Amino acid sequence: MKIVRAGGITSPKGFKANGLCCGIKSTGKLDLGLIASDCLAVSASVFTKNSVKAAPLLVSQKHARHNKILAIVANSGNANCFTGKFGMIYAERTAQIIGKLLKIPKENVIVASTGIIGKPLPFKKIEAAAPELVRGLSVNGGKNMAKSILTTDLGTKEKAVSITIGGKKVTIAGCAKGSGMIAPNMATMLGFITTDAAITAAMLKNAFKTAIDQSFNCITIDGCMSTNDMVTVLANGRAQNKTISKKGKNFDAFAKALAYVCLDLAKKIVIDGEGATKFIEIHCVGARNYAQAKKVGLAIANSNLVKTAASGSNPNWGRVAAAAGSLGMAPITEKNLKIKFSPFYKKEIQISVDLNLGTAQATIYTSDLSVEYININKRYS
Amino acid sequence: MKIVRAGGITSPKGFKANGLCCGIKSTGKLDLGLIASDCLAVSASVFTKNSVKAAPLLVSQKHARHNKILAIVANSGNANCFTGKFGMIYAERTAQIIGKLLKIPKENVIVASTGIIGKPLPFKKIEAAAPELVRGLSVNGGKNMAKSILTTDLGTKEKAVSITIGGKKVTIAGCAKGSGMIAPNMATMLGFITTDAAITAAMLKNAFKTAIDQSFNCITIDGCMSTNDMVTVLANGRAQNKTISKKGKNFDAFAKALAYVCLDLAKKIVIDGEGATKFIEIHCVGARNYAQAKKVGLAIANSNLVKTAASGSNPNWGRVAAAAGSLGMAPITEKNLKIKFSPFYKKEIQISVDLNLGTAQATIYTSDLSVEYININKRYS
Repeated sequence: MKIVRAGGITSPKGFKANGLCCGIKSTGKLDLGLIASDCLAVSASVFTKNSVKAAPLLVSQKHARHNKILAIVANSGNANCFTGKFGMIYAERTAQIIGKLLKIPKENVIVASTGIIGKPLPFKKIEAAAPELVRGLSVNGGKNMAKSILTTDLGTKEKAVSITIGGKKVTIAGCAKGSGMIAPNMATMLGFITTDAAITAAMLKNAFKTAIDQSFNCITIDGCMSTNDMVTVLANGRAQNKTISKKGKNFDAFAKALAYVCLDLAKKIVIDGEGATKFIEIHCVGARNYAQAKKVGLAIANSNLVKTAASGSNPNWGRVAAAAGSLGMAPITEKNLKIKFSPFYKKEIQISVDLNLGTAQATIYTSDLSVEYININKRYS
Repeated sequence: MKIVRAGGITSPKGFKANGLCCGIKSTGKLDLGLIASDCLAVSASVFTKNSVKAAPLLVSQKHARHNKILAIVANSGNANCFTGKFGMIYAERTAQIIGKLLKIPKENVIVASTGIIGKPLPFKKIEAAAPELVRGLSVNGGKNMAKSILTTDLGTKEKAVSITIGGKKVTIAGCAKGSGMIAPNMATMLGFITTDAAITAAMLKNAFKTAIDQSFNCITIDGCMSTNDMVTVLANGRAQNKTISKKGKNFDAFAKALAYVCLDLAKKIVIDGEGATKFIEIHCVGARNYAQAKKVGLAIANSNLVKTAASGSNPNWGRVAAAAGSLGMAPITEKNLKIKFSPFYKKEIQISVDLNLGTAQATIYTSDLSVEYININKRYS
């Protein structure tokens, strides 16, 4: 596996992108982005498990069911959430105008939004900018697309890697946004993955599920679940490798590279977490199974007392133990637990928790809970 | 129901108490307390659901099984948690020496601890002070007992009420401690309830379960569960009312007064929460059942984004809706939810959430997440 230098979502063959400012953000920063494949791509998506879902997710969920997507249009500055029936209408129309300009059905377009909630999506601005957005699609447009989905993220999150499958170079890339805030809002995570691999929808879904499970689903900033989270992967087959249609060496190589890209983006989200001053890796080992390891890791990662201790460079194992026990899983007791810390004064720290119950393990990534987090999120505007 | 002015755990007949400084705390503040009935009392107890339980809880759990308790000994300054096998030995010996001095078996003594974890309990100090602690038992000792269990609580938490049952005056009282910290530690909640009511163990347990469920189990400061939490009630029958042995008017009056005392103490814990600048009441109504109402209320109360918004006097309904939806309960959607706020600039605020799914409701009490909370908990000492 090779890292593509300065790579991004347009590194895989057949993908173009663009990003511009259509005026949703009053700051003049980029707020509308588009990724387009030059042919229909198979796709897989995951959406927030929050029962309150924003309009673009409801529309995209419907479109994603066909597993055939050509374009992803995303805006920042407005989450199109809690916007009543016009939320749905505007999300659908956004897919429609992009579809029309690209000469494809709106069902082949995924829509995503992030930003302020409870305010109508300024759809006219999107509509007015759409022709320019499509005209400007280019293989150099990945960076602007990655910029256009940011809210208060401090920087873009991009990654691209290449592998060889049956003599063909296959590239996998992605961009993401993490937890930012424009009050009143909530943290939202968006991730868009592109690849030129030829792969069946079923195998793509399989590899994607594992990759997500061990990356975007293993990070937590503040334990709060957004109404707008989504991650989508498009595979357009332009690498012309023999289509991956079953498990085996080729699938494994693809899955590993996909997981690598997802984990890299997920970690970048944590590092850029709101008010984050520490990057915390929690290794939960010795669990009965992966699910238990992950649950315990997340309980520790979401403990305000653990996160605050980390903020103060305080390796407080009592808080870690109490968090591990808080799930009430009977065999997790004082006698079994073994807790280790890396030097806590560093910016990147590790907490190892051995449950001594089995051989399964999981790693969770989180940031600390700092005074800056409070100040970012208590502000009213 | 009448409030007993300046009442506390020694307001019910037949209870004495004492509190002193035996030297566990280096500050000279009270750190060892005792409540004793002049006869065996029926009792009921609840313990933390954390699978990691401190030694005194393991000992008290064993003793509480008999439902016959005469005394409660509690210390602050040291939680006797993560202290290996000596933790158990010292917790048992504490019950033993108090039992010996009171001329009762150690099984009739409940032990509780709160404070620093991971350090051996300075048992010799407790042993040396025990005779004075017992000698000093008095009907005026309730205040000192209430003081002796505090860690960084800003004040004592006490309440007493009286009711009439079959012409007899019955008094119910309690004291509690809330979330304090002496690093490295965790928040711990202790509650001790005394009553002179004559009631069977079964009916006491019944009333206690309901009271706890709607008071101590409806509060949250930071969502972190301690290894040392416990609440115990002792009923010694000295009021000489006809023993409450079944449901009915007398039971209802008793249960209502018990619930009132528990809720009063629980609210006092929230008001005195670490770094608390707001007292937040979350009314979740229109739920399918009580369990759902409580779950949704707690999800909102434990949302860092909701709590931080409250800290900034920011009535952010988007965060409340996202927290309500975060449980992933399908029918909780944008369309159904109705959210109302009381004026948010005040110190006591209300958030009403109507799920529009049924008629059940629950009220949860919490404090805000403030910069002061972070500063209290990041400090290392």
